[in-house]
Amino acid sequence: MNLSEIGEFGLIAHLQKGLETRAGVQIGIGDDAAVLDSLHRPIVTMDALVEGVHFRREWTSARALGRKVMAVNVSDLAASGARPVAAFVSLALGADETVEWIEELYTGFEDAAREWGFTVAGGDMTRSRGDLMISIALVGEVLSLARGPILRTGAQNGDVLVVSGTLGGAAAGLALLQAPNTNVSVSTRQKMLLRHHEPTPRLSLMRALLEVDADAVHGALDLSDGLAGDAVHLARRSSVSLQIETEWLPISVQCREVAAALSADALDWALAGGEDYELLLALAPEKVELLSLEAEKRCGVSLTIIGKCSAPDEAGPQVKILENGVMRPSEGAWTHF
Amino acid sequence: MNLSEIGEFGLIAHLQKGLETRAGVQIGIGDDAAVLDSLHRPIVTMDALVEGVHFRREWTSARALGRKVMAVNVSDLAASGARPVAAFVSLALGADETVEWIEELYTGFEDAAREWGFTVAGGDMTRSRGDLMISIALVGEVLSLARGPILRTGAQNGDVLVVSGTLGGAAAGLALLQAPNTNVSVSTRQKMLLRHHEPTPRLSLMRALLEVDADAVHGALDLSDGLAGDAVHLARRSSVSLQIETEWLPISVQCREVAAALSADALDWALAGGEDYELLLALAPEKVELLSLEAEKRCGVSLTIIGKCSAPDEAGPQVKILENGVMRPSEGAWTHF
Repeated sequence: MNLSEIGEFGLIAHLQKGLETRAGVQIGIGDDAAVLDSLHRPIVTMDALVEGVHFRREWTSARALGRKVMAVNVSDLAASGARPVAAFVSLALGADETVEWIEELYTGFEDAAREWGFTVAGGDMTRSRGDLMISIALVGEVLSLARGPILRTGAQNGDVLVVSGTLGGAAAGLALLQAPNTNVSVSTRQKMLLRHHEPTPRLSLMRALLEVDADAVHGALDLSDGLAGDAVHLARRSSVSLQIETEWLPISVQCREVAAALSADALDWALAGGEDYELLLALAPEKVELLSLEAEKRCGVSLTIIGKCSAPDEAGPQVKILENGVMRPSEGAWTHF
Repeated sequence: MNLSEIGEFGLIAHLQKGLETRAGVQIGIGDDAAVLDSLHRPIVTMDALVEGVHFRREWTSARALGRKVMAVNVSDLAASGARPVAAFVSLALGADETVEWIEELYTGFEDAAREWGFTVAGGDMTRSRGDLMISIALVGEVLSLARGPILRTGAQNGDVLVVSGTLGGAAAGLALLQAPNTNVSVSTRQKMLLRHHEPTPRLSLMRALLEVDADAVHGALDLSDGLAGDAVHLARRSSVSLQIETEWLPISVQCREVAAALSADALDWALAGGEDYELLLALAPEKVELLSLEAEKRCGVSLTIIGKCSAPDEAGPQVKILENGVMRPSEGAWTHF
């Protein structure tokens, strides 16, 4: 089917059939704006993926891409201690998308909506003269009304610094896309590609931590640009210095296998690779053991201590990354510029 | 200043200084997500402007563009009977924007935020390989909690069809940009360019109508693609047929002057030009006079009766556009495809 045959509104009506309206949304696609149920502590995030910058169409299916752009936004809400309610999609279509490709993209949106319990409730669709661009606004609600949102400003002197899951896997997956002939095992390839294509925002983990002891979760952010750079945001916003021990970083054997095959440094990927969408958490030290046990038990997600928060240095909040007790030269985080 | 010198986060921190946090927003730019005050009837819209499709940089200042992309979204909320609370901006920068240009764009965002009382509360910024794209998500709240949102589904058989202000002016302005040597008076040129560059969303009008008699406002939408096409949405969603008398359409003398100078048809512009951002309203017939008087008195906005709503035809809801009592051949609305 051709886009100009079906038309903008025909396409929207067609895509809408594959979308389910879930709790929290009164009026979705089709009016000037979407109407939601009352939100006690509304929380909103927005993140875009741009072709050629964040993804290449030859490396991803439309469906995986649709799920991923939603996951990236769910991850921001999860890091804030919030759950998603309604997503809005602004789509600028390039010259050569087909109706089938866009349908697959929306199937990916709906995969995410089903998985994390929200509704694709609106947005707009236009043409661009160049690349495809997918911009998502995700509206949600704070999980614990008593605790409120979890912020980047909440880390305290004495807090233990923890990450969820493993780091560097998304960068290993990207490296395999860039060098597809790399000699690694089939299962390693699959796992690392999955880390790149299908990130898991840590929504159920955050929910579990808040249920176990909401007051022990002082600060959080999600690792999208890489630990070394993202940690700087936590340090600055919380006015604490952070000390990170590179030996403690959770790096999977598969990630190490890919790095070895490419003569790359898995530690570089863990620190600056980006796109892992794990949580960096500042936790009350006396509660770390309990929270780790419960995270493992309730969600099967491991928490790893990677360092600590201390009073800011004289020069202000610093992130010190130590390798065998020696400061590593400052890491560049991934930036769009 | 060069973008690569200041960096993504430096730029965001820099831009943030020009933005004011207004009532309704607890935590704005700087965390994973923005946190808002409770919203009783939250309402969300999203609309993007893409370079080369919706605007050309040589035709507009960055500041006017920033105000306009916000105005377009405020218009959607106004049409829904809602006011804006927080805006989120997803910006994909092309190759050649300067920091100064982006500052001007944000000044335009803040102009709009001040004018219509909301906060620019978050978003993201990235690079594109091609054109600039500005995608806005606007979160608001229903103006009248008792009446609820005003929807496209609310028009009833017997309602009077009304538009605010005048139609065709934005198209006249665009025509002057396309043919700058057109021979029209200075004040006409200024007025019509302003209609194109600086649309006025009808927020204060909608507020006044709802204060006067919220139950008399049955249905509404904003005219972004042109009356002929937009009216179809109202007809279909409300299951009514609409009859529009072209002689009754409010077309300004300036619009007619531009059309005459270009041997164009002002009526075409009024029906299919798009971007007027006036409201199309379906009103209870016995309240039209009162509402018109109050709109004029409270906001200085004229309401014009342009037709009526009737039971759907046998073939379903139709939009009949009558010129001297004769059906005009069907109009094409502006579409992105």
